[in-house]
Amino acid sequence: MKATIITIGDEILIGQIVDTNSAFIAKSLDRIGVEINEIISISDSKEHIMEAFYKLQNTVDLVVVTGGLGPTKDDVTKKAFCDYFEDELVVDEMVLAHVTQLIEGYFKRKITQINKDQALVPSKCTVLHNQMGTAPGMWMKKENTVFVSLPGVPFEMGYLMDNEVIPKVIKEYKRPYIIHKTILTYGQGESLVAERIEEWEDSLPEFLKLAYLPSPGKLRLRLSARGTDKMKLEEAIEEYVCSLDAIIHDIIVGFEEDETIEVVLGKLLTKQSKTLSTAESCTGGKIAQTLTAVPGASKYFKGSVVSYDTAVKIEVLGLSENLIEEHTVVSAAVASAMALSVKRIMKTDYAIATTGNAGPTKEEGNAEVGTVFIALATPNEVIVEEFNFGQPRDKVIDRAVVKSLEILQKEILKKEL
Amino acid sequence: MKATIITIGDEILIGQIVDTNSAFIAKSLDRIGVEINEIISISDSKEHIMEAFYKLQNTVDLVVVTGGLGPTKDDVTKKAFCDYFEDELVVDEMVLAHVTQLIEGYFKRKITQINKDQALVPSKCTVLHNQMGTAPGMWMKKENTVFVSLPGVPFEMGYLMDNEVIPKVIKEYKRPYIIHKTILTYGQGESLVAERIEEWEDSLPEFLKLAYLPSPGKLRLRLSARGTDKMKLEEAIEEYVCSLDAIIHDIIVGFEEDETIEVVLGKLLTKQSKTLSTAESCTGGKIAQTLTAVPGASKYFKGSVVSYDTAVKIEVLGLSENLIEEHTVVSAAVASAMALSVKRIMKTDYAIATTGNAGPTKEEGNAEVGTVFIALATPNEVIVEEFNFGQPRDKVIDRAVVKSLEILQKEILKKEL
Repeated sequence: MKATIITIGDEILIGQIVDTNSAFIAKSLDRIGVEINEIISISDSKEHIMEAFYKLQNTVDLVVVTGGLGPTKDDVTKKAFCDYFEDELVVDEMVLAHVTQLIEGYFKRKITQINKDQALVPSKCTVLHNQMGTAPGMWMKKENTVFVSLPGVPFEMGYLMDNEVIPKVIKEYKRPYIIHKTILTYGQGESLVAERIEEWEDSLPEFLKLAYLPSPGKLRLRLSARGTDKMKLEEAIEEYVCSLDAIIHDIIVGFEEDETIEVVLGKLLTKQSKTLSTAESCTGGKIAQTLTAVPGASKYFKGSVVSYDTAVKIEVLGLSENLIEEHTVVSAAVASAMALSVKRIMKTDYAIATTGNAGPTKEEGNAEVGTVFIALATPNEVIVEEFNFGQPRDKVIDRAVVKSLEILQKEILKKEL
Repeated sequence: MKATIITIGDEILIGQIVDTNSAFIAKSLDRIGVEINEIISISDSKEHIMEAFYKLQNTVDLVVVTGGLGPTKDDVTKKAFCDYFEDELVVDEMVLAHVTQLIEGYFKRKITQINKDQALVPSKCTVLHNQMGTAPGMWMKKENTVFVSLPGVPFEMGYLMDNEVIPKVIKEYKRPYIIHKTILTYGQGESLVAERIEEWEDSLPEFLKLAYLPSPGKLRLRLSARGTDKMKLEEAIEEYVCSLDAIIHDIIVGFEEDETIEVVLGKLLTKQSKTLSTAESCTGGKIAQTLTAVPGASKYFKGSVVSYDTAVKIEVLGLSENLIEEHTVVSAAVASAMALSVKRIMKTDYAIATTGNAGPTKEEGNAEVGTVFIALATPNEVIVEEFNFGQPRDKVIDRAVVKSLEILQKEILKKEL
């Protein structure tokens, strides 16, 4: 079964927003064995939308469209559906009741005509109930292709995919099996890993496909199997992941899809009953934020002192002015002192500290843009490393966050051996 | 001049990664007046890539392709270029020298065959020098269409767009003017704003287009003008933004493209010479991180205490155990005390504090999932508000961050009147 995803909106075509809906829809469909052959972003013009529909008619089984359903005048998806299906808009009483309840009951505002118009849908469509907002989803079939329209607001789209579209696709279509297994590695680059596993990669059977997914500081390897015999696929994935593990065991940190280093770290800290705190200067709280984005982080993460200003390093963390003057703020000595201090203050087993210059400018006497010192205080010692993460600012911050977590993980893994 | 963007990679089609490259490329091209008619994501198969090329040949002036250039075996873009242009791969000596220098000089590793293969390019292509990595960009023309290939690593792609592609497009093509003006509003929803400006919107001339871009807590309105007479476009934009401002002045917070509430806040705080700190529980440092993502934040942002654990609220922020026991951790009293405490400790004019339950679970006696108290300590008082941001966890955190900044901005704006 094949599907195409269409996202509608000039704001995507001029680069004003990043299209995250497509990735969500693609992942949801892929998980139930639907193959996505293309993702297309087009402008919010009725002609473009209909042109895309005509092209896709009978070439794919399913077309999922997002965007162009909001309550404002640049919305055109409904009109395109009406014209394409030679249909007309009618009021759906269920939707109208829901919209009225949402606006008057929940938001405590008087309902307006624009709100009411949300209840207009093509007369022949199957309405997909949007519990999360006012724009309903629509499901319409023409010959061999189903066209689904979803609102562009991410959490409304997500709700409709999970609760309406996926269950309906499962019920109405037969699909092959697709199994992915992701191997998360840290510490070695794409080309080096490729060299190490070349022989293994050459030995993969036809139905197994390997992809390299590099991102700052980490590399994910994704093995995908597609076919009709689920057991055979699972066994093959299992076998090849096992033989891969034997080759690059030293850099593999996890296997779960979407597993990130902060999730892996959380599991390790929980298992070892250890706690963590951070003292952040150049990372500005992003290490704390990354750690606390994981549900259940309160089990091992105590807190952070974001000491952005030098005065906070002295007054809250208790660093000595002399130390800072002697070594400058961006130094190994200050990073170490920050880590030790926050570890003591928050009574944790481990503490990470960062100090650096994320840029974009370098002041007289200060560290070069991109310079970051990362310190890790463990129960027994303090480790400090110096890095230059280059430019621009957001890259420096992101790299410092990933590297900090990597240094901590390496230390914690030693306890696992 | 029209362009199409193609991103290549199975990882996009199965939803494993979000395609951020397209937005960057689209924005860069839009800024110089190139119209993007479509963004397409396809699989990393040579056949799919060539099929897309054949379809686009002579229908657009420029095709920008990203992805499929990494040093591993699933890379196919180069092969597709060779076949499509009936060309063959040859070693480019300049690229080889650069790759060797990068690997041996910078990374201090021995160069491998996979690294060396990066220097292979189609013999007829114009090489776009990639200062940031090992994969070169390529520029090739067939009849009326130029095909450009860029690596998929975001900062390498960004470097090549800024330093090679955009200058070359400017030099070689005539383009019309496109002017956008974004109006950032906070506090009212899309449909309400649409009602308020209906008459104004109806009065817009043909060459001006309005788009509504809603995101959690804020709504951007984008006015776009396209034409050949730059002065006429600028005057029209100016005039209509001015008349719009007269209608919804109460909710407009800024006009610059990409202007976010944290940027606006930074300007206001700098202008008023005021300082800010945060004490964060459920937001886990994300307010601090959002503020410090803005270059120059050290002028007004002092730091944060991320008091994720209750013990940190007591020991670092100095809250009384009795207060917490009496009111529970997620309460107006605790939020107020946190704000006042961090304001005192960090000696700032303003302080924001958050405490809440971001979920996914609610423990016995604890606050409902989604409940968040936000406190703002100003030079004269403390304001506390209670919210329920629903689910899931990341949405609760993001909404709490935006709402915190919104409350602060409202207070600071009072001083501007």
